[in-house]
Amino acid sequence: MRINRRFLLARRPHGAPVPEDFSFVEQEVPDAPLGGFVVRNCFASLDPAQRGWMDDAPSYMPPIALGDPVRASTIGVVAASKSPDFAVGDWVLGLNGLEDYSVNEAGGFTMKVDTSQVDSPSRFLSAMGAVGLTAYFGLTEVAKPKAGETLLVSGAAGAVGSAVGQIGKIMGCRVIGIAGGETKCRRLIDDYGFDVAIDYKGKSVDQLAAEIRAAAPDGADVVFENVGGDVMDAELMNLAKHARIVLCGLISEYNSPEKIGVRNLWQVLAQQATLYGYLIMDYAPRFAEGGAVMAEWMAQGRLRIDEDVQEGLENAYEAFMRLFTGANTGKLVLKIADGL
Amino acid sequence: MRINRRFLLARRPHGAPVPEDFSFVEQEVPDAPLGGFVVRNCFASLDPAQRGWMDDAPSYMPPIALGDPVRASTIGVVAASKSPDFAVGDWVLGLNGLEDYSVNEAGGFTMKVDTSQVDSPSRFLSAMGAVGLTAYFGLTEVAKPKAGETLLVSGAAGAVGSAVGQIGKIMGCRVIGIAGGETKCRRLIDDYGFDVAIDYKGKSVDQLAAEIRAAAPDGADVVFENVGGDVMDAELMNLAKHARIVLCGLISEYNSPEKIGVRNLWQVLAQQATLYGYLIMDYAPRFAEGGAVMAEWMAQGRLRIDEDVQEGLENAYEAFMRLFTGANTGKLVLKIADGL
Repeated sequence: MRINRRFLLARRPHGAPVPEDFSFVEQEVPDAPLGGFVVRNCFASLDPAQRGWMDDAPSYMPPIALGDPVRASTIGVVAASKSPDFAVGDWVLGLNGLEDYSVNEAGGFTMKVDTSQVDSPSRFLSAMGAVGLTAYFGLTEVAKPKAGETLLVSGAAGAVGSAVGQIGKIMGCRVIGIAGGETKCRRLIDDYGFDVAIDYKGKSVDQLAAEIRAAAPDGADVVFENVGGDVMDAELMNLAKHARIVLCGLISEYNSPEKIGVRNLWQVLAQQATLYGYLIMDYAPRFAEGGAVMAEWMAQGRLRIDEDVQEGLENAYEAFMRLFTGANTGKLVLKIADGL
Repeated sequence: MRINRRFLLARRPHGAPVPEDFSFVEQEVPDAPLGGFVVRNCFASLDPAQRGWMDDAPSYMPPIALGDPVRASTIGVVAASKSPDFAVGDWVLGLNGLEDYSVNEAGGFTMKVDTSQVDSPSRFLSAMGAVGLTAYFGLTEVAKPKAGETLLVSGAAGAVGSAVGQIGKIMGCRVIGIAGGETKCRRLIDDYGFDVAIDYKGKSVDQLAAEIRAAAPDGADVVFENVGGDVMDAELMNLAKHARIVLCGLISEYNSPEKIGVRNLWQVLAQQATLYGYLIMDYAPRFAEGGAVMAEWMAQGRLRIDEDVQEGLENAYEAFMRLFTGANTGKLVLKIADGL
């Protein structure tokens, strides 16, 4: 009998998740349901958004139920099937959970992918998955920067931010990145080709705002926001007239029991800026199109998508927390298995 | 010798303006400059935006200089002219000051208006001025609600808000207004035809959010925001997916020494909403077009624009403060003179 190890949400975290918020259990591998199939998860995506799904609050997706595995995008292999559309051995990408095996009912959103085109199946969770395409569509379809405009990116060394900066450069923007610490700032310049890197650590909103102003005296035409809080407040003091702000994430407040928001909202009014609440899901039907462009840019050496691959389902908690300590270097992925 | 009474900004207010922030002086009436003219101000518009102009902070317009009259939109009569385009006796609308006479240099933005089409020249500061047209263009061009959608308006009994609600009804929306106190809420229903009126006074964010939810279980498709702070936080908890928020004003924080902003910004992300920082100035070239529609709606009895006319330049301070105590009933206007 094969074992299904599962990383379950045991209670709703208050602030930063602690190990006691989860339980790690071993259960029997489920059978494929009629018309459905079972996926052997090989890589799971670890994303800030998962923290939001752990809360019991109105959002774009139902909260993870207590006792369910932590929801995650995974890439894996069909291990058992009663579906005419999925055969054992097919590689599939879908919204499953942090567990060895996930049941997929008939009619779900899981899709087959061709892993022969990539060096690792994990690419479908990074460059060609929701994270890379969040950067791609957020910039090309929402912000629509013009060549010569100034693009300001927060969380710039992160998985989305580093892709946003590079795509901004490809589109001809001057790109300023905000990240935490010297090492990350160095990577923005050396690895990702940003024009300017600003370290937010240890700085007040006023100090950070002044540094941004020095780098962008005429203000930012586009802000790609992954962080929120003080960082966003400093950015808001540096908007160009008619700036576009892509609100993609608010990682600074995901672990805060109280919501933080922004104080300098009045600058959105004063500069007649537009702020777009942006989730990738609206662009899901266009993933193949965006993924092809991303793959081409990577093949041309114009786009570098780093992955931070952590090993082992039993290390799910420690791996997940790397998102919030800033330890991850690139798209955080948890490797669960090599294949069937 | 004629006297020019002037209401000057003496120092920058800290929080709510106090009488000592201003001085009231009598000076000689200036001569018309070469190519320019002098306006005898008859009515001045008193608006929340003026409070922002008193602060020394980056905004869409330079701060009012200390010792200058408080900047205000006025309608008045040309009293002296050395301009080929303006004759003594012409009625003109422009950005002048709280003073009897304002100098207009050549090439300014002041425009001639035809007062024969209105019952009072003050109409050009209310229905057909920036305030009425803020409502008109903000709704018809920025928010673009569709018939059957739910429109949520804060500051709903105010000059902009009451017009927004009525235009929303004309466009076929279900209109919910938020205002302070029973009397104002009664006026929303009886005078302006709102479907629902919600009194925010004495309620927590959670309580107000629950009342909005009861009135709009599926959320608001459009939010027209004039208030900010707690009221906006409660609204943000009630967005429909892909909601549009027109950020038109933040009166709750104009007198606050600390900026307040919003805490529930994450809902903009979760509901994939768009927030438009909106100022009327971009639509200035279309004022005649919008004013004609507003005038027609008023003539048809479909639109009611109330004015709260206060008398006398010497009462400028008390009149202005009516905006922040909520005392004004309709567009607040200060009458300075009948004409030349």
